[in-house]
Amino acid sequence: MSENKIPYKIYLEEDEMPKAWYNVRADMKNKPAPLLNPGTLQPMTAEELGGVFCEELVAQELDNENAYIEIPQEIRDFYKMYRPSPLVRAYCLEEKLQTPAKIYYKFEGNNTSGSHKLNSAIAQAYYAKKQGLKGVTTETGAGQWGTALSMACSYFDLDCKVYMVKVSYEQKPFRREVMRVYGASVTPSPSMDTEIGKKINAEHPGTTGSLGCAISEAVEVAVKNPGYRYVLGSVLNQVLLHQSVIGLETKAALDKYNIKPDVIIGCAGGGSNLGGLISPFMGEKLRGEADYEIIAVEPASCPSFTRGVYAYDFADTGMVCPLAKMYTLGSDFIPSANHAGGLRYHGMSPVLSQLYDDGLMKAVSVEQTKVFEAAEQFARVEGILPAPESSHAIRVAIDEALKCKETGEEKTIVFGLTGTGYFDLVAYEKFHDGEMDDYIPTDEELAEYRAKLPKVE
Amino acid sequence: MSENKIPYKIYLEEDEMPKAWYNVRADMKNKPAPLLNPGTLQPMTAEELGGVFCEELVAQELDNENAYIEIPQEIRDFYKMYRPSPLVRAYCLEEKLQTPAKIYYKFEGNNTSGSHKLNSAIAQAYYAKKQGLKGVTTETGAGQWGTALSMACSYFDLDCKVYMVKVSYEQKPFRREVMRVYGASVTPSPSMDTEIGKKINAEHPGTTGSLGCAISEAVEVAVKNPGYRYVLGSVLNQVLLHQSVIGLETKAALDKYNIKPDVIIGCAGGGSNLGGLISPFMGEKLRGEADYEIIAVEPASCPSFTRGVYAYDFADTGMVCPLAKMYTLGSDFIPSANHAGGLRYHGMSPVLSQLYDDGLMKAVSVEQTKVFEAAEQFARVEGILPAPESSHAIRVAIDEALKCKETGEEKTIVFGLTGTGYFDLVAYEKFHDGEMDDYIPTDEELAEYRAKLPKVE
Repeated sequence: MSENKIPYKIYLEEDEMPKAWYNVRADMKNKPAPLLNPGTLQPMTAEELGGVFCEELVAQELDNENAYIEIPQEIRDFYKMYRPSPLVRAYCLEEKLQTPAKIYYKFEGNNTSGSHKLNSAIAQAYYAKKQGLKGVTTETGAGQWGTALSMACSYFDLDCKVYMVKVSYEQKPFRREVMRVYGASVTPSPSMDTEIGKKINAEHPGTTGSLGCAISEAVEVAVKNPGYRYVLGSVLNQVLLHQSVIGLETKAALDKYNIKPDVIIGCAGGGSNLGGLISPFMGEKLRGEADYEIIAVEPASCPSFTRGVYAYDFADTGMVCPLAKMYTLGSDFIPSANHAGGLRYHGMSPVLSQLYDDGLMKAVSVEQTKVFEAAEQFARVEGILPAPESSHAIRVAIDEALKCKETGEEKTIVFGLTGTGYFDLVAYEKFHDGEMDDYIPTDEELAEYRAKLPKVE
Repeated sequence: MSENKIPYKIYLEEDEMPKAWYNVRADMKNKPAPLLNPGTLQPMTAEELGGVFCEELVAQELDNENAYIEIPQEIRDFYKMYRPSPLVRAYCLEEKLQTPAKIYYKFEGNNTSGSHKLNSAIAQAYYAKKQGLKGVTTETGAGQWGTALSMACSYFDLDCKVYMVKVSYEQKPFRREVMRVYGASVTPSPSMDTEIGKKINAEHPGTTGSLGCAISEAVEVAVKNPGYRYVLGSVLNQVLLHQSVIGLETKAALDKYNIKPDVIIGCAGGGSNLGGLISPFMGEKLRGEADYEIIAVEPASCPSFTRGVYAYDFADTGMVCPLAKMYTLGSDFIPSANHAGGLRYHGMSPVLSQLYDDGLMKAVSVEQTKVFEAAEQFARVEGILPAPESSHAIRVAIDEALKCKETGEEKTIVFGLTGTGYFDLVAYEKFHDGEMDDYIPTDEELAEYRAKLPKVE
């Protein structure tokens, strides 16, 4: 099909939507390191994980062998409500940049959670329901994951208890209100409902909380309440598996028009979006069928890949979660106020960490002001106000397209536009008012946190 | 095609998108009454209108004859960036209601302006650019129109001056911030920039403004500044013309699957969405080719159709705009604080007013609390957080579907879901907290405003 036939937006038909998730671990020679029991430092067994997570999700978490895992019909039906998401040809951005590059983005923001998070939320809610549970608990920082999970639980009539980092709870009342629309209970963390919350409140009176602390609270509540399990929106293998729907749709849309990308770019916090987007492409790369340049983009304020170390670390502040081997800055690392709340996690998906360590993908870090410049440029020509997280990918996509302008290369660039910025306008306001902070941690600071990493051989 | 083949979302291909707008006036036996010069009370000439509006838009405003007006290629290209909008089969809502009715909605909220307003904003900006103008002025209340116009002006590199009702400017800083992303200048109204603003500020110190006052300011600035014209997001014939793209896409999507609607429902403030949605269906009705039940839904707090009179009235508080014959509550009528900001206009599109007066459509009014109950019910099963305006249509669509449940009728119901409620969460919060106001004006109040209508024979 000729180039000029490519529409602005490529939608798949319902019957072209993926029927199975793709599990990139099956094609990895070096498998991601197993989660460890924080007490024994031995690999977590399915039984141990079953106390925290739903059974079928534990099976998915541990499955390094099966390349395809069927998407249950109920989840496929829910996907049809807000998917397929469009693969957009950024004709207007290309023209604005006067680049010979061809730019595509997979837009995941056209649902009320405002991001790709719903892809895994609905899967996790489904398996909880299937197991006959009463409800699930989770934490949320920026609020996208909490919103997505609320929507999913409402659909399956499950109770949903969200522990929301106190500072977000207070500064983002609208996110909280969306969760209320979907019937979730939202508690500011640290709360007085849990032992860990009480302890942290006693030790740090007036604390505004952190993601690591909210995780610990949510896990405690799940473990102590019969009929409840804990669910998580990123980092875990199961989450990347569910998010592979992004990459599978992207690849199917590109294949429809015989388009072969040269560069694939995604923002990376815990890795859910990036892992999902690149999965099928990485699979081809691992099997030697194709080659792609894959770029993870992280904030300079929280540079897990580019300045972290590959080591076992705690996932949460309370150290109740299993240890994961990942690129990490140390679980005590608290990034400076960066508005891309979804990219502020100290660690990174074990799957992506292994792929990065094996040299199968690159990573770059970008400063916040540059990110918002790209966000605004994009919004003005493409008509979508992007989330700060997504705008990290936009920044690097624009940079790559500008390189093509210099070299004359007609590269095909695909990036993930994970969500919209409708709840991030305080950040845009700061950007416009010149009050945006571009703090980058010093080597000394990073070394200090690194020294506190748990000793695991 | 068999019933069960209908997908959750019907998208048109790019080459199925409308190439011309449909002008329902061409098929109306009784044409809408002309706008009158407020000084002479004679019909406004093209020359007079040209002082306020762009030339080609004046031609469209006055054109009661041509049924189809070509959509310029530049506008069609912009439409491709965010259209076609999906026609969604509300399978989940149907199941929840256990109704035999088939429910479809045309969802216009998947763009950053958050509503259908962009359909006309881009057209008006295009014609302003084509005429070589420097910029345009407008007013905004809730902020959707201002956002849409900012996006359109940014695309065509036009200056955009928005007068935003002061109370909204202060209470909705995020809407204001989105307009800033798109480079618009946003001024709280009444301002000290205009004669009318100064006068109103002097007469009513501390006033928080009104839509009628902001219109007057925007018109004054357009008239006094060379190279500027005024643009409006609703009520006018030209706006309904541009919005016919909603109805044309809806009809094309239905035709693809041989679906014939029985009932078509839309919310109505100034009439831009409703007029656009129903246009091609009304055309068939006017030409005797088909019959449809068409229902306008308005808030009980601002019931122009159901409790207003059909008479000439001022469009603005400052009385600088032409007089329009329309269903009106009187230009001094200020509705009680109703959160559906987009439905608070005292009047109604002259085209829709004539069609209503001719008995070609019905109108119902609904109370706010009932509207939010429907909004929440919809959000939980369909995954979209609706705007309060749109939720008026949802309320009546649900009521109609419940009637079908009683009678067993398998009616096909189509309604317009004009936008998302991401900037309306204060209203949702009031609803959850039981603080929502359901004030309905008394007959005495309405009579008082009616007595002040201008005397035009």
